[in-house]
Amino acid sequence: MDAELAAMRAELSDLRAAQQKLAARLQEAEDYRDLMNLQCAYGYYVDKGMWDEAADLFAENGTLEIAGRGVYVGRERARAYLKCLPAYGHGVLFNHMQLQPVIHVDSKAGTAKARWRTFITIGWLGKEGRWGEATYENEYVRENGKWRIAKLHGVINFYAEYDKGWHKGGVPLLRSIDGLEPDLPPSFEYEAYPEPVITPFHFDEP
Amino acid sequence: MDAELAAMRAELSDLRAAQQKLAARLQEAEDYRDLMNLQCAYGYYVDKGMWDEAADLFAENGTLEIAGRGVYVGRERARAYLKCLPAYGHGVLFNHMQLQPVIHVDSKAGTAKARWRTFITIGWLGKEGRWGEATYENEYVRENGKWRIAKLHGVINFYAEYDKGWHKGGVPLLRSIDGLEPDLPPSFEYEAYPEPVITPFHFDEP
Amino acid sequence: MDAELAAMRAELSDLRAAQQKLAARLQEAEDYRDLMNLQCAYGYYVDKGMWDEAADLFAENGTLEIAGRGVYVGRERARAYLKCLPAYGHGVLFNHMQLQPVIHVDSKAGTAKARWRTFITIGWLGKEGRWGEATYENEYVRENGKWRIAKLHGVINFYAEYDKGWHKGGVPLLRSIDGLEPDLPPSFEYEAYPEPVITPFHFDEP
Repeated sequence: MDAELAAMRAELSDLRAAQQKLAARLQEAEDYRDLMNLQCAYGYYVDKGMWDEAADLFAENGTLEIAGRGVYVGRERARAYLKCLPAYGHGVLFNHMQLQPVIHVDSKAGTAKARWRTFITIGWLGKEGRWGEATYENEYVRENGKWRIAKLHGVINFYAEYDKGWHKGGVPLLRSIDGLEPDLPPSFEYEAYPEPVITPFHFDEP
Repeated sequence: MDAELAAMRAELSDLRAAQQKLAARLQEAEDYRDLMNLQCAYGYYVDKGMWDEAADLFAENGTLEIAGRGVYVGRERARAYLKCLPAYGHGVLFNHMQLQPVIHVDSKAGTAKARWRTFITIGWLGKEGRWGEATYENEYVRENGKWRIAKLHGVINFYAEYDKGWHKGGVPLLRSIDGLEPDLPPSFEYEAYPEPVITPFHFDEP
Repeated sequence: MDAELAAMRAELSDLRAAQQKLAARLQEAEDYRDLMNLQCAYGYYVDKGMWDEAADLFAENGTLEIAGRGVYVGRERARAYLKCLPAYGHGVLFNHMQLQPVIHVDSKAGTAKARWRTFITIGWLGKEGRWGEATYENEYVRENGKWRIAKLHGVINFYAEYDKGWHKGGVPLLRSIDGLEPDLPPSFEYEAYPEPVITPFHFDEP
């Protein structure tokens, strides 16, 4: 009897430990899904000039760096940057489609990294139509139980005029945004197409 | 002995309850994956004029509403609508790429909602080439153990002629499909680019 | 007492069996995520001429078949094929965006199948700009604990010159790659747009 009880105690202990491991693994699966939802939602907000909604997806100390314009540090600075972008309205197209995620989560630490890309169709009626594409190497953090963007780093691969196409020349990066100096210089210097640019990978192995 | 048995009974009970919670959370992770597969499969069928395969992904009472043409209620009406679309064949391109999902599942209820987008390349050799992009706000239901589309609602953001680009003008919505009156009027009235249009979000928070 | 112990033994046994089933289901959810990461990483490598990194994602006996050029059998042959592709550098754009996955995993067998698509923007400054789109029907295998590409099969739906658009004619498939004969003939013969082509589906039901 004592031996049987001891065996059952041991088995209960094993089951409990195994269950905790399953729960930790399940947390990673859930976090992966939540991170997908987060980045895709960001894109939908940016498309339509919903700058507050987009900014609210940043962590309190999140950073934003786009198109070689330097780093904006903190959610409110990300918000200020986003509010410098063109307003959405009649004749405006500002689509930044989000796709191709490679996501690595450390659920225990509450952090994650992901490589994404955005395929861009922008335009102003009667003025300008443009294609673009960029690579993101982003970081995320779980803050107050919700995943937030800790670092949004978008590196432009190309901008091209609709009327010409990339093979007739890329549109050079505009290195600043009107009226809003960055908090830190760019992470690295680069020029977009026709110059080659490879955004450093957060992983050696998918 | 009695105290020990009582403790073990209690622990078994806790393990069982915890396991049920894990199973419920795991169901959500599986449903997320199945919903991704479902919507992506829909896109592949639509590309190639596989209208029956596409219609079969609808729930019995599923609804379809695309491009402001009104609502078609029930799988067989969705099938009738799809069969009014251009046949696939020589010279035809009808790609509706599916991407950027924000998916929320209620596995217990067997329902889900998702925001998707489609990036469109269509054309007829010698006649017409066109770009397009639309937002979906869809609903899904688990029917006979399989996820099905309960509501497909596609809102066109823009159509543009390949030869011109969106900045030279959008292609207005054709508000009806030949020979097939809708069952209900459109959910909301809108015009595509150059008019601004923001498809209402099913979520406040990703 | 004996009856109680017997009941508890039975319950422990049930919990253990149920936990193993949960673990198996969780493995499938993790495999799904890893397969997403794998294919998306492949695309990022191909964009930037990182042929060794791309080839290293193939299983030892993996096969590669793209654009009707025949089948290359084995990782080193896939590597040889990839190294025949244009070098990345100044003026080069070679984006093969990866999207729209329908993934089915057999975790127990360590195999998987997925339908993906790629939307392609390629170009050489001053020479050529081109759009393309292809369907993949791929297979994967778990090798040494990591998912690898067992079969990469990319079927071109269209290539079109940027300056013309698909409606003015598709770019025919180049049926061979300079200096590297395939190991097996193409899986099936086809021509891209304007000819219709439907890549066979690995699934009847998503």
